[in-house]
Amino acid sequence: MNRPIRRPGGRSADVRRRVLDAVVTQLVDHGYDGLSIDTVAASCGVHRTTVYRRWRDVGGLLADVLAEAAGDDWRPADTGTLDGDLAALNREVFAALTGDPPITTALIAASFRSARAAEALRAFWADRYDRCAVIVARAAGRSEIPAGTDARRLLVAATAPLYHELVLLRTGPDEGLADRAAADTAVAARAGAFVTGVVSPG
Amino acid sequence: MNRPIRRPGGRSADVRRRVLDAVVTQLVDHGYDGLSIDTVAASCGVHRTTVYRRWRDVGGLLADVLAEAAGDDWRPADTGTLDGDLAALNREVFAALTGDPPITTALIAASFRSARAAEALRAFWADRYDRCAVIVARAAGRSEIPAGTDARRLLVAATAPLYHELVLLRTGPDEGLADRAAADTAVAARAGAFVTGVVSPG
Repeated sequence: MNRPIRRPGGRSADVRRRVLDAVVTQLVDHGYDGLSIDTVAASCGVHRTTVYRRWRDVGGLLADVLAEAAGDDWRPADTGTLDGDLAALNREVFAALTGDPPITTALIAASFRSARAAEALRAFWADRYDRCAVIVARAAGRSEIPAGTDARRLLVAATAPLYHELVLLRTGPDEGLADRAAADTAVAARAGAFVTGVVSPG
Repeated sequence: MNRPIRRPGGRSADVRRRVLDAVVTQLVDHGYDGLSIDTVAASCGVHRTTVYRRWRDVGGLLADVLAEAAGDDWRPADTGTLDGDLAALNREVFAALTGDPPITTALIAASFRSARAAEALRAFWADRYDRCAVIVARAAGRSEIPAGTDARRLLVAATAPLYHELVLLRTGPDEGLADRAAADTAVAARAGAFVTGVVSPG
């Protein structure tokens, strides 16, 4: 067993970068079944003991891929209208779900194999929806939509049709999908859907 | 190699029933990795040659589970209002996605492993959404919603938040989720969302 010397931060960050890039490449190219400490270590030239000590197993590697993705400074676009903000958000989701290489769909597929990946993906999305709450606050501030509109409920309504169509129903990518779901949700919000504690009029 | 004698219809249907029940049990109890022609044959007492000849592989078994499920005479409830019809539908989806044993979520997970299962699940859902189009036609007939409302777009808006929250985001089951998503979608439809070819007012 090697007894690795402690590395300075830059070297450690570089190792993490190489390992996580290798995880994504292996996952996209060979699927979850092609992922292992050994294949990742071999493909990025980092000693398997280093990978094992820091990430332990495939679940740890996948969780760190998502933790790193969550560590960015992404913020939703501020276009000046609810329609515009939701359309911009949905176009980003659409691009992620139809991207090549299909990193996002590969991570979603992996979340059905690894409880740690599932938990990391849940945390990633929770943080993304939290960051998007400002879209709803801005729209309420402009009186586009009623005060008391539930941000997460609105944001899930806008984005869920994309995940449903592209990931579960596996319909072919339809260019208008992102904008339609955004516009439909904006109509709903202006009409008073998504308001907490209010039962809609029948 | 056995040369099986051709069985009458009743016996053949009985074999199919036993095999498909065993597929579902194996899938729920042991996951996709626990599924094989051998484990299924052994668990239901049907000769493995019979299973192999009729279903060929795990993909064929899963596709037939979904084909059999699609062969029922299910129709959406007719409650007299769009809100009621969507709430009834969403409660059925919610029950399926939170059911114990978790058959639906196990089939969704399997669809990420097997292209045949993915295609069968896609066909199953396409048929279900087709059957539900009558909900939208009835609402338009009662002038609850505009003529030209796109049935699939409305139905996906109503149901997608349930799949997103329960299957992908893996939030805990929230009793109000089904009714809220139904009511939000009915508000949207009455306000003119989901109308084909119309860009919503900004």
